[in-house]
Amino acid sequence: MSADAAKILEAVRSERAYVASLFDELRAGSVDGLGVTRDTFGEGEQFGYEVIEREARQSGLEISRDHGANMYMTLAGRDREAPAVMTGSHLDTVPRGGNFDGAAGVIGGLIAQRVLRALGLTPECDVTTMAIRAEESVWFQVSYIGSRSAFGRLPDGALDAPRVDTARPLRDHMADCGADIAAIEAGTAHLCADRIRAFVEIHIEQAPQLIEANLPLAIGTGVPGNFRYPTMRIIGEYAHVGLPRRFRHDAVLAASDFARGLDDIWKRWDEGGRGMAFTIGRFHTNPDEHALTIVPGEMTLSLDVRAYAASHLEELETSLFALVRDIEKARGVTFDLGPRASAACAPSDDRVLRNLTAAAGALGIESMPLPSPASHDTATFTDAGVPSAMLFVRNANGSHNPHEAMEIDDFLDTTAVLATWIANEADAA
Amino acid sequence: MSADAAKILEAVRSERAYVASLFDELRAGSVDGLGVTRDTFGEGEQFGYEVIEREARQSGLEISRDHGANMYMTLAGRDREAPAVMTGSHLDTVPRGGNFDGAAGVIGGLIAQRVLRALGLTPECDVTTMAIRAEESVWFQVSYIGSRSAFGRLPDGALDAPRVDTARPLRDHMADCGADIAAIEAGTAHLCADRIRAFVEIHIEQAPQLIEANLPLAIGTGVPGNFRYPTMRIIGEYAHVGLPRRFRHDAVLAASDFARGLDDIWKRWDEGGRGMAFTIGRFHTNPDEHALTIVPGEMTLSLDVRAYAASHLEELETSLFALVRDIEKARGVTFDLGPRASAACAPSDDRVLRNLTAAAGALGIESMPLPSPASHDTATFTDAGVPSAMLFVRNANGSHNPHEAMEIDDFLDTTAVLATWIANEADAA
Repeated sequence: MSADAAKILEAVRSERAYVASLFDELRAGSVDGLGVTRDTFGEGEQFGYEVIEREARQSGLEISRDHGANMYMTLAGRDREAPAVMTGSHLDTVPRGGNFDGAAGVIGGLIAQRVLRALGLTPECDVTTMAIRAEESVWFQVSYIGSRSAFGRLPDGALDAPRVDTARPLRDHMADCGADIAAIEAGTAHLCADRIRAFVEIHIEQAPQLIEANLPLAIGTGVPGNFRYPTMRIIGEYAHVGLPRRFRHDAVLAASDFARGLDDIWKRWDEGGRGMAFTIGRFHTNPDEHALTIVPGEMTLSLDVRAYAASHLEELETSLFALVRDIEKARGVTFDLGPRASAACAPSDDRVLRNLTAAAGALGIESMPLPSPASHDTATFTDAGVPSAMLFVRNANGSHNPHEAMEIDDFLDTTAVLATWIANEADAA
Repeated sequence: MSADAAKILEAVRSERAYVASLFDELRAGSVDGLGVTRDTFGEGEQFGYEVIEREARQSGLEISRDHGANMYMTLAGRDREAPAVMTGSHLDTVPRGGNFDGAAGVIGGLIAQRVLRALGLTPECDVTTMAIRAEESVWFQVSYIGSRSAFGRLPDGALDAPRVDTARPLRDHMADCGADIAAIEAGTAHLCADRIRAFVEIHIEQAPQLIEANLPLAIGTGVPGNFRYPTMRIIGEYAHVGLPRRFRHDAVLAASDFARGLDDIWKRWDEGGRGMAFTIGRFHTNPDEHALTIVPGEMTLSLDVRAYAASHLEELETSLFALVRDIEKARGVTFDLGPRASAACAPSDDRVLRNLTAAAGALGIESMPLPSPASHDTATFTDAGVPSAMLFVRNANGSHNPHEAMEIDDFLDTTAVLATWIANEADAA
């Protein structure tokens, strides 16, 4: 371990009690009886901002905001004009979610900055932690509202999105939190790629792969891209319950062939070590027509397919089309794929990956490379052209539920990797 | 062809115009814009009774009714005390159904009786056509209301069953049509097995097997028994859309395994020439929790499995349990089978089958044996111990829809088989 790395690790570990109390305060202020709720551009998220802003000020960081009400906490560098090293994550949660999803990345950045400052390491460039708004798309059904606002890339119409429970539009919620709606509508960019040297986001892992591997952290190699068919339909033929097999055009069996066919593809990709996932979240006969004694003539289903390279998504969609054709022929049914949506893959930057791996190595902390199963704000930075990557903290029980379970020691190890990487990236001395 | 058979065939065929006009009158009085609707114990069924009663009276038959408002049309035999030969079917239809489902069996009986009378063939015993009430369970969700009332076997509570669209109870609808509710509640039997020599029901085929075989009619070898799980549930685990495959407990994939597993069993039974059918009519994720980006943790489905021998149903249910165990293990999910219902198999009587086959042979009409895919009132007669069988008339486009398509010539051939069988069975001379 280098002298600096050893000092950083020691300094990060000395923040143990502070970190625990900060997470506890966040949790206490956003418990909802079952889990924690920090609603996007609502009271819950706002509470998180108040706590983090207070702590950042007390830690001697500069505070600023953009037109999207995102908050930036900056440790000033020697050259204020040099592109900044950035980190951060989001402060909102899903309803009845967990305390660590999002907040870990903001607190991780704050701790890294405190440690650099405490060690008297002044970076050459600014080091900024961004507390990002509105990552959880469950509230307004729009992805990456905060990070895309910052880059001037919020899509047309997003401001009119109604909050799913109250129908009050996003623009009103954003205005409540101090956003400048006119600037968002004008497509103003507060962040741009050539002003950012690199971006790294800490996030809890959302699957138990690190538990399985017995490792405290992973270095995120990319955020998956996807294609989606939210309302695919299979049209067969409703028929009498006694109809012999050879005359049936059973939509349920066709849909089962489809689900199983995709699962077989996934199994082969897994065996070949190629990352992908598919999810059929909605899968149902027509509630107005289905019955115990009627051969089902219609199924509706949603499909999300994700992978880590554009060529992989292409290959998967080609396989999907072939599967559909085979089933149509075998079962005498028709697929209507319906509308299609997609998002580009966001592979991590090679140099950032190498440097994060080197930082973990310098600290003597074991890690593994890991593609992110889920989407993250990091994808917005990658899309915008910022060299980016992620750090995942071991976490039992997944995310988006009250049972997520991150050990503070694992979080401190990960934060030490982040702080070491920042120190190197920002040439702090 | 024997002399009698030739005369019967000629006489039946001479009823062609009469038969066509009778079906036309029934259709004209019950069209609903899309198909025909003769609602159980409602105006539509009642209209059918008026038409048939008028024609039976004009044909010189005796009319009587039982406490369940079923109607009996009798050609008196020489020995009024001897057990009767019976035929008949139902006069109700499903909503927007077809004109021939049910009515063909009542008109077939009426024509057979007219022909025997016209040929001066007096039977030794009474020959009775029963116009059966309430076969279509779609209206009150109770099977065989009419035939089971006649045998004093209507289950407890059936009279309180609400009509699905209006919620008005069955008892009120039956009373409207002249039923004696107190007698039904007392379990009065109007029919009993030792007063019936045999029963044969004509019905349109409900699958295109006779179209495929290019034959006008089939001799029904039995009505299937079934077991049903109307609300089976599969409990997996809701999870984040990015969760890797090996950690998932996906209820949709488990349900797809289940549907496909049953389909594989059916395929093998088909290849082995053993009759069965299974239908998963309802098949759905939980509409309150499913979403595009959530791994589905729950599926609900209905299952109807039918076969023609008790031992076959037992074997199928054993296979089902094994399939469930395999899937539970492979996918890490739990099946909750929920309530179970069942109905006994009703195999046709060997002697009646032989005699029907002989009658068709005597007429020179080609036929084939065929297990009934669907349930029929004949099952009530078999259950009660009456030697019974069925005759199926070729019919394109299935049943329970407005597109059913029976040719009158096929119907006349089938009626000739029925009339010849009745003449032999009742020893008419």
